Amino acid sequence: MKKIRVGLIGFGTVGTGVVKNILSNGELIAQRTGIRLELARVADIDLKRERDVKLDASLLTTDACKIVHDQSVDIVVELIGGLSPAREYILTALRNGKHVVTANKAVLSKHGLEIFETAREHNVEVLYEASVGGCIPIIKSLRESLTPNNILSIDGIVNGTSNYILTRMQQDELSFSAALEEAKRKGYAEADPSFDVNGTDSAQKLAILASLAANSWIDVDEIYVEGITHITQKDIAYAAELGYSVKLLAIAKFGADWVQARVHPALVPGDHPLADVWGVFNAIYVVGDYAGEMMFYGAGAGQKPTASAVVADIVDIGRNIKSAARKRVSSLPEVAMAKRLVPMEEIETRYYLRFTVIDRPGVLAKISAILGENNISISAVTQRERHAESAVPIMALTHSAKEASIRAALSKIDSLDVVKDKSVMIRIEGGE
Amino acid sequence: MKKIRVGLIGFGTVGTGVVKNILSNGELIAQRTGIRLELARVADIDLKRERDVKLDASLLTTDACKIVHDQSVDIVVELIGGLSPAREYILTALRNGKHVVTANKAVLSKHGLEIFETAREHNVEVLYEASVGGCIPIIKSLRESLTPNNILSIDGIVNGTSNYILTRMQQDELSFSAALEEAKRKGYAEADPSFDVNGTDSAQKLAILASLAANSWIDVDEIYVEGITHITQKDIAYAAELGYSVKLLAIAKFGADWVQARVHPALVPGDHPLADVWGVFNAIYVVGDYAGEMMFYGAGAGQKPTASAVVADIVDIGRNIKSAARKRVSSLPEVAMAKRLVPMEEIETRYYLRFTVIDRPGVLAKISAILGENNISISAVTQRERHAESAVPIMALTHSAKEASIRAALSKIDSLDVVKDKSVMIRIEGGE
Repeated sequence: MKKIRVGLIGFGTVGTGVVKNILSNGELIAQRTGIRLELARVADIDLKRERDVKLDASLLTTDACKIVHDQSVDIVVELIGGLSPAREYILTALRNGKHVVTANKAVLSKHGLEIFETAREHNVEVLYEASVGGCIPIIKSLRESLTPNNILSIDGIVNGTSNYILTRMQQDELSFSAALEEAKRKGYAEADPSFDVNGTDSAQKLAILASLAANSWIDVDEIYVEGITHITQKDIAYAAELGYSVKLLAIAKFGADWVQARVHPALVPGDHPLADVWGVFNAIYVVGDYAGEMMFYGAGAGQKPTASAVVADIVDIGRNIKSAARKRVSSLPEVAMAKRLVPMEEIETRYYLRFTVIDRPGVLAKISAILGENNISISAVTQRERHAESAVPIMALTHSAKEASIRAALSKIDSLDVVKDKSVMIRIEGGE
Repeated sequence: MKKIRVGLIGFGTVGTGVVKNILSNGELIAQRTGIRLELARVADIDLKRERDVKLDASLLTTDACKIVHDQSVDIVVELIGGLSPAREYILTALRNGKHVVTANKAVLSKHGLEIFETAREHNVEVLYEASVGGCIPIIKSLRESLTPNNILSIDGIVNGTSNYILTRMQQDELSFSAALEEAKRKGYAEADPSFDVNGTDSAQKLAILASLAANSWIDVDEIYVEGITHITQKDIAYAAELGYSVKLLAIAKFGADWVQARVHPALVPGDHPLADVWGVFNAIYVVGDYAGEMMFYGAGAGQKPTASAVVADIVDIGRNIKSAARKRVSSLPEVAMAKRLVPMEEIETRYYLRFTVIDRPGVLAKISAILGENNISISAVTQRERHAESAVPIMALTHSAKEASIRAALSKIDSLDVVKDKSVMIRIEGGE
């Protein structure tokens, strides 16, 4: 039986889950793999907090440096999140010849290149399955099972908080703020949910997925990001009537020498597999040139699912140690391929548009004319009868059009005196 | 660049896909992995058939023995299917120190133990991702990503032909035979589709999945198997009215010392992720004690998706060869765990029942009484008004009940003189 000594930095929710998993399922893991995981040391700045797992006090420390410099530790697990000191702990551990497992999407999307290069230099590994999609093995699948494929596209629902909010808005007609408050009460949203609802969290995850799929580093700061805070219940209801679900998507598309990477809400056709991903669940829909359409679905967060992914990474490295494999799967492609990140203005997709206009003859003609001048062709249009309001909504779905054209058209339309409110634009993804 | 020499036995649809993938994406694979795949030799009994890929004639042979004994071959890929001579080729290759990749569910579900033991003995590997779910990385996920989990259940739609037929029956009201004929015309069903529609194919795949999840060999011949040939459009329509989809499921459930393994059609609640898997797609829904609910979705068959899985296995072994890893992931658990296969009579689940009765007072009371005597409690019941027919249908959904009780009750009910036809029973899965 091969013993693997694990040092844990961060004894919070996920860290506690990892400890629980090793204690409760360590025997199962040993039977399956011939590897026995041993907790060498656990560091946290707060050792007094009540945790529902008991560890020998001698294992606990407030000093993470003791772990990254511990000669006996094979694998350092970083679960404190954030950029610093996580980055420093990871780099020091790697330089000390230790493998690293992390769930930290922020540090990877920002400092991934430095971290992976340091790992390669010191002949050790960094695994990070839990950084995207909780327990879903999307990182491993992209790094290993999909190796024979040119990845054509990735569409991910990778933020459970946003998906919960959008689910409640669509299925139960809650407003954005009511759904957000409920998500907070249920523990699905943090006290400050900004990174979840403004798309930052999704963009960090997309940077990791897109970089893997493209064999080319995608800088998280260059990803176009739009959150869901401006999505109204009204637009979700109109979209549903038209047969679409509104989802916050992390989208990447890949060509021979270019990459698109963007995060924004999107109308997804009802018959698309992503349209049926509800609540806090995550799902990543991937298209490969050989595999075709695939979807990976599961819990994107939570103590136990995240712990499952972290321990799977520990076991993965343990298997390499046991079988004396070094650099079995490259963290960076053996030959990096430079790809151009397509500016948002150049993308082409379909659009949902909602105009708020005065109910007067010729308004639709004016709007249509501006769309036509910008080479935007309409595939469906609905104008509602006026009830109490002074203005009426016109909803339009477009055929595929250039983002730059849409922006130009909307700017012109919004300056018309018959248009009473800023027009709404939500992109459509996942259709023909 | 590490060269890996691949010998291919079986140059049919999937074999051609593997050759195409290596030719078209070999450079991509090399850039990602530092491994160059080389086709050493390709064997097929028919070398004259038209194939849409050109190979140098010197690579082709009709004699598979040349491949399994070729000193220069690192990995033998077996794609001829069936039990013999596939088993002999695989065993000989392993004994000659070659790794094996196969897509052959029949030989693995029947001779898997022998094959895996031979591989272990000769310190080589057998990978078989393509044997279940086409391109879906379910085998790798069970063997690696889910290692920290006690797998609690697996529910798989693993036969695309059956799922296509059931989809057309549910969505377009086709009869079973019309849907089957259409599937044949479209190439989704073979000339003899018996193994697909009678559940044999699903049972072979389930044996593989359940054995992996249970760490215990499940004999395919002991799996309860019921196909879809007796499913009528009428029952699919009634199920849909009640909010259920009918799917052919490969089901395994796991306890500390027992396993359930069964293949049969089942009513799946409309809000279950499997309910939205349509057409020829496959999906495997797995519940782990840490990961929770997961679903893996993709193309379960087809030249390119299957080739993707086969080449991923080749690359996986190539990575082990390159990094000098031996026995990195055990084909068999390090410590095998004996588990009892639960007889079908002992399972407990919910049931959909349809009785065909004479429209006469007291009939429902008689049926209810028999169900009650057998401890079967009804959760919903619908009796239709009689139209032209001489008999009327009564549909009932039960709470959880023992299979033995249901069988006893149905046998008694079917002997009532007011019951005009054999009662229909379809199990319900995926609910509370």
